[in-house]
Amino acid sequence: MAHNHYDVAIIGGGVIGGSIAFQLAKRNVRTIVLEKERIASQASSAAAGMLGAQSEFASDSPLISLALKSRAMFGQVAEELKQLTGIDIGYVQKGMLKVAVTEEEQKSLQEQYKFWRKMGQPVQWLSASELASLEPNVNPTLKGVMYIAEDGQVSAPHLSLAFAKASMAYGAQWHEFTEVIDIKEQGGLYELRTNQGVIAADAVVVAGGAWSALFLEKTGLSLSVYPVKGECLLVKTEKPLIQATLFAKNGCYLVPKRGGRILIGATSTPHTFDQKVTVQGVTHLLEKAQELVPSIGGAELEKSWAGIRPQTKDGLPYIGKHPHYQNVWIASGHYRNGILLSPLTGVLIADLVEGKGRGELDITPFAVTRHHDAISTV
Amino acid sequence: MAHNHYDVAIIGGGVIGGSIAFQLAKRNVRTIVLEKERIASQASSAAAGMLGAQSEFASDSPLISLALKSRAMFGQVAEELKQLTGIDIGYVQKGMLKVAVTEEEQKSLQEQYKFWRKMGQPVQWLSASELASLEPNVNPTLKGVMYIAEDGQVSAPHLSLAFAKASMAYGAQWHEFTEVIDIKEQGGLYELRTNQGVIAADAVVVAGGAWSALFLEKTGLSLSVYPVKGECLLVKTEKPLIQATLFAKNGCYLVPKRGGRILIGATSTPHTFDQKVTVQGVTHLLEKAQELVPSIGGAELEKSWAGIRPQTKDGLPYIGKHPHYQNVWIASGHYRNGILLSPLTGVLIADLVEGKGRGELDITPFAVTRHHDAISTV
Amino acid sequence: MAHNHYDVAIIGGGVIGGSIAFQLAKRNVRTIVLEKERIASQASSAAAGMLGAQSEFASDSPLISLALKSRAMFGQVAEELKQLTGIDIGYVQKGMLKVAVTEEEQKSLQEQYKFWRKMGQPVQWLSASELASLEPNVNPTLKGVMYIAEDGQVSAPHLSLAFAKASMAYGAQWHEFTEVIDIKEQGGLYELRTNQGVIAADAVVVAGGAWSALFLEKTGLSLSVYPVKGECLLVKTEKPLIQATLFAKNGCYLVPKRGGRILIGATSTPHTFDQKVTVQGVTHLLEKAQELVPSIGGAELEKSWAGIRPQTKDGLPYIGKHPHYQNVWIASGHYRNGILLSPLTGVLIADLVEGKGRGELDITPFAVTRHHDAISTV
Amino acid sequence: MAHNHYDVAIIGGGVIGGSIAFQLAKRNVRTIVLEKERIASQASSAAAGMLGAQSEFASDSPLISLALKSRAMFGQVAEELKQLTGIDIGYVQKGMLKVAVTEEEQKSLQEQYKFWRKMGQPVQWLSASELASLEPNVNPTLKGVMYIAEDGQVSAPHLSLAFAKASMAYGAQWHEFTEVIDIKEQGGLYELRTNQGVIAADAVVVAGGAWSALFLEKTGLSLSVYPVKGECLLVKTEKPLIQATLFAKNGCYLVPKRGGRILIGATSTPHTFDQKVTVQGVTHLLEKAQELVPSIGGAELEKSWAGIRPQTKDGLPYIGKHPHYQNVWIASGHYRNGILLSPLTGVLIADLVEGKGRGELDITPFAVTRHHDAISTV
Repeated sequence: MAHNHYDVAIIGGGVIGGSIAFQLAKRNVRTIVLEKERIASQASSAAAGMLGAQSEFASDSPLISLALKSRAMFGQVAEELKQLTGIDIGYVQKGMLKVAVTEEEQKSLQEQYKFWRKMGQPVQWLSASELASLEPNVNPTLKGVMYIAEDGQVSAPHLSLAFAKASMAYGAQWHEFTEVIDIKEQGGLYELRTNQGVIAADAVVVAGGAWSALFLEKTGLSLSVYPVKGECLLVKTEKPLIQATLFAKNGCYLVPKRGGRILIGATSTPHTFDQKVTVQGVTHLLEKAQELVPSIGGAELEKSWAGIRPQTKDGLPYIGKHPHYQNVWIASGHYRNGILLSPLTGVLIADLVEGKGRGELDITPFAVTRHHDAISTV
Repeated sequence: MAHNHYDVAIIGGGVIGGSIAFQLAKRNVRTIVLEKERIASQASSAAAGMLGAQSEFASDSPLISLALKSRAMFGQVAEELKQLTGIDIGYVQKGMLKVAVTEEEQKSLQEQYKFWRKMGQPVQWLSASELASLEPNVNPTLKGVMYIAEDGQVSAPHLSLAFAKASMAYGAQWHEFTEVIDIKEQGGLYELRTNQGVIAADAVVVAGGAWSALFLEKTGLSLSVYPVKGECLLVKTEKPLIQATLFAKNGCYLVPKRGGRILIGATSTPHTFDQKVTVQGVTHLLEKAQELVPSIGGAELEKSWAGIRPQTKDGLPYIGKHPHYQNVWIASGHYRNGILLSPLTGVLIADLVEGKGRGELDITPFAVTRHHDAISTV
Repeated sequence: MAHNHYDVAIIGGGVIGGSIAFQLAKRNVRTIVLEKERIASQASSAAAGMLGAQSEFASDSPLISLALKSRAMFGQVAEELKQLTGIDIGYVQKGMLKVAVTEEEQKSLQEQYKFWRKMGQPVQWLSASELASLEPNVNPTLKGVMYIAEDGQVSAPHLSLAFAKASMAYGAQWHEFTEVIDIKEQGGLYELRTNQGVIAADAVVVAGGAWSALFLEKTGLSLSVYPVKGECLLVKTEKPLIQATLFAKNGCYLVPKRGGRILIGATSTPHTFDQKVTVQGVTHLLEKAQELVPSIGGAELEKSWAGIRPQTKDGLPYIGKHPHYQNVWIASGHYRNGILLSPLTGVLIADLVEGKGRGELDITPFAVTRHHDAISTV
Repeated sequence: MAHNHYDVAIIGGGVIGGSIAFQLAKRNVRTIVLEKERIASQASSAAAGMLGAQSEFASDSPLISLALKSRAMFGQVAEELKQLTGIDIGYVQKGMLKVAVTEEEQKSLQEQYKFWRKMGQPVQWLSASELASLEPNVNPTLKGVMYIAEDGQVSAPHLSLAFAKASMAYGAQWHEFTEVIDIKEQGGLYELRTNQGVIAADAVVVAGGAWSALFLEKTGLSLSVYPVKGECLLVKTEKPLIQATLFAKNGCYLVPKRGGRILIGATSTPHTFDQKVTVQGVTHLLEKAQELVPSIGGAELEKSWAGIRPQTKDGLPYIGKHPHYQNVWIASGHYRNGILLSPLTGVLIADLVEGKGRGELDITPFAVTRHHDAISTV
């Protein structure tokens, strides 16, 4: 690999890096993506693909406006990516059922319901008979069910691959198996030393998910991004058991996929990069799933895996400028909203890199410098 | 499994059985599919998915009108299946390039070209510069290239699964791991003894691909269907190398699939049910592929497999009535045109079963009794 | 495949067919094995490999003497197969712990203990402290633990493959993907029509496991062999959690394998050939395993599968002559003792085929004609 | 993960790190192994397992005495590891055939033959008829064949796993998915910052294979270790085609493995961490293999993979002290002799760490400081 020069180098080839590459390449920015393994080999392909812009929030958060806006982009994104790459991202708009299993969860679900009513976003409280008629296979003894019509879903691996391939169609370069070891600034130019040679770029975007913090330490920045392992299962049913995504307050969810499949997710084990699918993790998911949809017991276990999601101390992603460098940008820490937020994050970072105003969206809550500890480690 | 009674029992859950089940179930016929392994676990999922209604023929054949008619159905089939099942069958209409590598092949290709011109179906002879501009990665030293705009392609596994799931959506039952051991007629009712109990049906359709002959012997019918093993490879390229399917006269073909994949097929080993992918088979395919598209050498080998396709003595499928039984129908022996012919075969058999007239299509050339040897073995 | 003539044709290439082929080929009998899929592709490779000659019995049974005798052969078999094929069959002699979880199981376990004491075979009742010192990771609240020092274990897939390869080393032929469709006798010679041609042999052995009954019906014999699906799991632990096999009275067992693996088996679903691993099956196994060894919760789930074991009405295998044919022999229905009984079954059938006396073992309890219903179906 | 303190921390859990851990733990040294992925997930498991102490050398090299000595350890190592872990490392002593395909290779092979005769190590030049009788399936038109009786082979994945498990049996700790980011010395104690917490140790061993150089840069050391990708295939034959390993002068080799398998290796692509198996790589290996053993064409392709081997500028591994630190040791760059040299490297490094004399072996040629460029980068 020769000593190449690009407008922008993106570190990380997951769904966030891919969406940014797509936006930049589309705007004729010469872009390279440096991925230490393969395209979307980590959390992006492990994700369930829920677009939970409402289901993820029960009270005010600066993330809500981003989430709603990003969710609204998927119809157009699906079409554009299909056009450019032939890949169907599996965008399904059959809504989400947020459900309560215990009395306590019921209360909390009602709070969430009130919150969204107040926000003026469509939510619906389902009676037992409404649930039975909509989803006859769901456990009828649930303590509460809220229907969120607009929280759709996509296939996360297809979306991630499609962003990558679409960016290539617009001219972006992708280097897999390329780990960035060091970054040096020299006269406004950044030199990235990798395990496969040196890359030079005018600007750099760090989109390394749970691995971002490790790299950023080399730039004198201690970022509060930490890994949260999530185990998932895929099962195959003969006939579709559910139409909408089922999301229990306890964190377990069932996402109906094509061909009668149901994705069951996810456990949450913080502070580990270990990707082993454990006996206790699988037991937990299978028990919870059968609690929600008893007849899933007859389904076939097809696959299991774990993904390492990037969480932050306050639960908000980092989207913004590196405090010590002029043209280094950070987009990391999307936790389990990475798929949902990817289209908008791509646009936001592309705008920042190009020096455009941020438009109507306020992204200061996502600034890297919002914490005291997110400062120079030197 | 209880002693159940259906209108129609279909033996074989591949793309042909699935398409027939889909048509019947859609017409409110109570249908069961008996599959000895899993849905589309054999040739249907192994196929490359080319819709070679023109590329497969170089002279007159009774199959041509079926092939053209079936090919024309795919646009509507793709939409209908997506609607019913959410599955995208990967229908791509970027045409096919039939190519000649040797002088001899060139002559034969020119004959084929003339044939289709005479038939009034669109074909185009490409000059070297036209080829270079359309497909810059194709070997420029080819001896001849004919472009067939209408010979598209689909994803064979997705099509097969979608037919099955769509038939279920209309109420068809599917029993996997169910092998039919014997058939008995009793007062116009057929009893199928399986390894998992007895099924009764008013009519039976045999759609067992290369395995049909084995079953039909139990009905006193010796059918000239024999297996032809075909080995295939799937490779991954960083950027799409070809747009159209590339089909060499020597039998090797490259079919561009989603996400930068290229399917390379297929060897032809007759008279074996062996599904092993051999060293010599893979060597042959890889050498031929690099001859056609030299830069495919850098692609990643992702997968290899073999499928057992059902060939017949005269190369025509069997579509018609069992000579000894009133309501037993046969749809087998589609060789490498099973994907292409599946939509129409579904309609034809459903019409036969329902006693409808055949419409404008003459299917007598596909009658089971067309050979002397296809008669009673008793 | 030409029209070949062998001394003996064995139908079924599992551990039983392989052991018989090994014995016959070793004695210079020209042997062919006809396997409809691949070598040991079904129950033989799915098995846990326990040699439970004592653990499987709690009262008198004609099978006990065979089981003890066959178990005693493994030391020598392991050595011989390693010598001939290089394959280590993983023979481990660390004993088995049969455990009771409930009061009821405790009583039943005590009965079993008394039975073996009376039989004069080594068994030992472990106190809580003995258990704790032998197996510190086993749940200390178990209601009873019996140690069977001699019930070792092997790797079932390795044993099955080693028998096959050892038989080949002695000259046996193996044809995979070869399904026998029909059998005809002509002047003392048997013609087996297969999907890949005709094979002639002076004698035939049916060793098709759960599939034997289907084939034997073609010979006018209705055998009470039926399939019992068993689901299994393989997990990986960092450090070995158990030394001995752990076998709960409720049917769940944990077999320690090389490299820190533990095989967890098995569910029992009778009368199905379905090989799907189900949500409820996996849940059951994982819950039971954690009950026995709580710290297995941290292990990694590596693999899951199902095998179809051949059970008979009275729980005894069929080992003997076909009632209607002179030189057709049957060895089927070993249920979950197939691995254990394979060495001896090979010797017994080889002796029968060669017309040798049976020696000291009485095999009349395993005769095919022991049931009223195992007679001519014609 | 708490702030733990160990005697020795080993960075890298491949066959070298595992062998060192095994030796240290056996000597009661409190040892931890930090592996960024899984045990032996890279080159160690990708290797063919040839013990080519003679085949790898054709002229004098300081490595020869190490290679011969390490090869001689395998008999005892195999037994010890089997005892401790139950794992059979597949040690086979059927020798190696080094073969020449061209006239040029023949000359070079003769030189190698003379060299080893002079060295007094057993080699044998085989005549065509000797070859034909020893290995009837080998191409009889080869230009020259040298038999090296003592160059055996093992199963590389089994050896690597067995070292790891044996070290654990002696008390060593292993942390997978643990990447070391930084090293700090403080009062003679080393603090290793990892992605999963901090580890403290009195001494550190760097055994990271091709990844060692990346880590060592953080210690101010630029080491000339670079990656060389090697693609491999595994094929399955019905009957064993070869007894000895076949090693062509052109770099292609065929290693007979258990159960009729043959491992075909290996391509050599320097300076890439890319692990993709390419169309051209597979084509090359398959063509070469069929040149050596024509009947391998009928074998089944079972698996393909690539490993990243650590090569150095002068082809010698680094075994010795870190120039800037008192108790940091390096064992890296074994290229394709890592399996062969692993037992001895374990002993050598354990001796160094413990401050023992080096015995009779001179390891100064492997000193880290032997090159001008292997010095401080600061």
